[in-house]
Amino acid sequence: MRELKVELGERSYPIYIGEGILEQIGSFFAKHHIGKASPLLIVTDEYVAKHHLAIVETKLREEGYTVASYIVASGEKSKSLSVLEKVVAAALEAGLDRKSTVIALGGGVVGDLAGFVAASYMRGVRFVQVPTTILAHDSSVGGKVAVNHPMAKNIIGAFHQPEMVVYDTATLRTLPDREVRAGLSEMIKHGLIWDADFTAWMEENASKLISLDQEALQYGLYMGCKVKSIVVSQDEKENDLRAILNLGHTIGHALEAVSGYNELLHGEAISIGMVGSAKLALRLGYPEHIYTVTKRILQAYGLPTRLSQHLNTDDIMSAMLHDKKFMEGNMVFIVPTEIGKVEINKNISSAWVREIVEELKQEA
Amino acid sequence: MRELKVELGERSYPIYIGEGILEQIGSFFAKHHIGKASPLLIVTDEYVAKHHLAIVETKLREEGYTVASYIVASGEKSKSLSVLEKVVAAALEAGLDRKSTVIALGGGVVGDLAGFVAASYMRGVRFVQVPTTILAHDSSVGGKVAVNHPMAKNIIGAFHQPEMVVYDTATLRTLPDREVRAGLSEMIKHGLIWDADFTAWMEENASKLISLDQEALQYGLYMGCKVKSIVVSQDEKENDLRAILNLGHTIGHALEAVSGYNELLHGEAISIGMVGSAKLALRLGYPEHIYTVTKRILQAYGLPTRLSQHLNTDDIMSAMLHDKKFMEGNMVFIVPTEIGKVEINKNISSAWVREIVEELKQEA
Ligand SMILES: NC(=O)c1ccc[n+]([C@@H]2O[C@H](COP(=O)([O-])OP(=O)(O)OC[C@H]3O[C@@H](n4cnc5c(N)ncnc54)[C@H](O)[C@@H]3O)[C@@H](O)[C@H]2O)c1
Ligand SMILES: NC(=O)c1ccc[n+]([C@@H]2O[C@H](COP(=O)([O-])OP(=O)(O)OC[C@H]3O[C@@H](n4cnc5c(N)ncnc54)[C@H](O)[C@@H]3O)[C@@H](O)[C@H]2O)c1
Ligand SMILES: [Zn+2]
Ligand SMILES: [Zn+2]
Repeated sequence: MRELKVELGERSYPIYIGEGILEQIGSFFAKHHIGKASPLLIVTDEYVAKHHLAIVETKLREEGYTVASYIVASGEKSKSLSVLEKVVAAALEAGLDRKSTVIALGGGVVGDLAGFVAASYMRGVRFVQVPTTILAHDSSVGGKVAVNHPMAKNIIGAFHQPEMVVYDTATLRTLPDREVRAGLSEMIKHGLIWDADFTAWMEENASKLISLDQEALQYGLYMGCKVKSIVVSQDEKENDLRAILNLGHTIGHALEAVSGYNELLHGEAISIGMVGSAKLALRLGYPEHIYTVTKRILQAYGLPTRLSQHLNTDDIMSAMLHDKKFMEGNMVFIVPTEIGKVEINKNISSAWVREIVEELKQEA
Repeated sequence: MRELKVELGERSYPIYIGEGILEQIGSFFAKHHIGKASPLLIVTDEYVAKHHLAIVETKLREEGYTVASYIVASGEKSKSLSVLEKVVAAALEAGLDRKSTVIALGGGVVGDLAGFVAASYMRGVRFVQVPTTILAHDSSVGGKVAVNHPMAKNIIGAFHQPEMVVYDTATLRTLPDREVRAGLSEMIKHGLIWDADFTAWMEENASKLISLDQEALQYGLYMGCKVKSIVVSQDEKENDLRAILNLGHTIGHALEAVSGYNELLHGEAISIGMVGSAKLALRLGYPEHIYTVTKRILQAYGLPTRLSQHLNTDDIMSAMLHDKKFMEGNMVFIVPTEIGKVEINKNISSAWVREIVEELKQEA
């Protein structure tokens, strides 16, 4: 088992990564002094529940916990205020009090939703993440939790750090292949923004990671979490540095919004977005190989690097203007300056961005 | 003008109390370095908007701010997730960004709702309270913000401190008399839990306060805010001491819930609740005069001290069991031990509480 500590002063927490560690979830809870007098609520989704809910419930009950579960529909649609209201109803019915803990068992959707429940239920209760997707290595570090508004993604939320993250890589075996690749897209992003060696390792180990080789997976998840946690530790509330985690996300979020949050997975959308950022780097005069390497790695993982023709450029642009990364009217972009390094560029002209969106439709 | 500082380390903020000070709201904003590049959103309700929105909008625009407003229906029903979703839509339409400020112009309902919008919009933006009810002297100190769930009051929320509170006592002149008295109920509570002298002053000045004598009002609001801020400064996140602010609230909240949040005003419900707590004090052997004085003051303000016969005791009891003040199954009550002092009693038998609810229906 690998262990990583996210350093956030009194809000620091560990991430445990290992194959089969859900068997020990009861003892993790006990070790973290999670009391047995108050009930726990597991929030999960349909697909995850089918494969992994029973073991979590069983092991926690064996340890002496009172456990209730609430199962939401799978998919981004569950990150809404109306589903939040239902989860809170379940929490009230189960008798959760201020000493209770909410557990997110699932991917980023369940993590963000259950995390915001934990942040806001009785103005904040404890929270444990049990990620079951690769993408969730990203969402389980940093404490950002949120639900969507019909007009904008992740717009209603909080910063709420978990007590711990229990990452059982065996759960990833039931994850659909397309979801595996999409999750690896964020792992590639963590290399691109921070670590050239890890980026090279990602390129070499593409086939191992895609086929869920447990050794490679644990190392990749460990490194992905580590990069993210270094960045987050330096800037918990996203005042400056943390913005670099948004490489590929400005375009990516717009693509998700315009395609109605169902055509493209988050990791696929940011894959295209990262190609867009690399193209921006070219325009700004940064080395050509940034673009070549970025695209080559993403393609090694079978991730999309071009934009579907049918998505309307105007729609994409106006979705970007609603995106919260545009402070005070300026367009802010994360731009790679070499492999493993990025800058926060606050002076990107929207005309350029529009041209790049058009170019992304012509990509090979 | 009176000024009071709520001491909360780097989250400290001032409360300005004075007649006609909304004229200067623009300069208060400038003094607090609220930038003009990001739009402001005023959240208010129908009744308040009719009387007081124009001046706030005008003065802020005169100062150079871009101001949007969103008007919700008056009343507790607006403290809901569905209204929150509408306010967030208004914020997005107005182009609010992470440097924007949300202004609550109104009573506790608007304060709690707009405060939770400010806490959760983009994971937290700045917040200014402009209270227009007497009760809001209570809700504008302490940073508790929340919306209701159909199953429980204030169950979804956050701790989010304002930048400042601008309390113009002239706005209180348009407040209906019944709301004036209900607000004074919380002011009485602040005396009863902390300050025997202030309690005596409250009894002497009942007619002045009811008739909105500006001098008395400013002193009363100042003292009410002060007691609350002392308590909150010592226990920002309600771990222990802060619970004393709940005098009368355990029963009070249950009465509000059972009467469907429309028969009794919050201040009226806690007035009955405070009589209940005084009766509990009697049973615990504390001096008789606690009960006599409590009831006499509340009656001087024309506040209710008995429970309507038609409210069902079982319903009231089960509403209390959903209340978040029952940690781990124990019944916790705030009990006066003398005038100006209370204890947090964690061993109150529910049988006693039931008897007291019954007795409250027989009160003179
Ligand atoms: N909070 C953050 O910092 C952060 C960071 C990145 C992304 N996110 C959010 O994360 C979300 C995307 O996360 P995601 O990709 O994990 O999505 P997800 O949670 O929707 O999971 C993807 C799909 O896989 C299924 N699934 C999950 N685990 C499974 C398993 N082990 N076996 C079988 N099926 C399984 C789910 O039911 C779902 O259909 C987005 O909403 C995004 O905004 C948040
Ligand atoms: N956050 C906290 O710490 C805290 C503390 C106490 C109470 N509260 C909350 O406060 C709420 C009750 O507050 P409230 O009594 O101020 O209720 P409110 O905001 O509903 O105001 C009462 C009524 O008076 C009207 N009104 C307000 N100001 C007016 C004015 N100047 N002129 C004319 N009409 C005016 C309103 O439209 C409403 O109809 C409850 O929801 C309660 O939970 C919160
Ligand atoms: Zn992402
Ligand atoms: Zn109150």
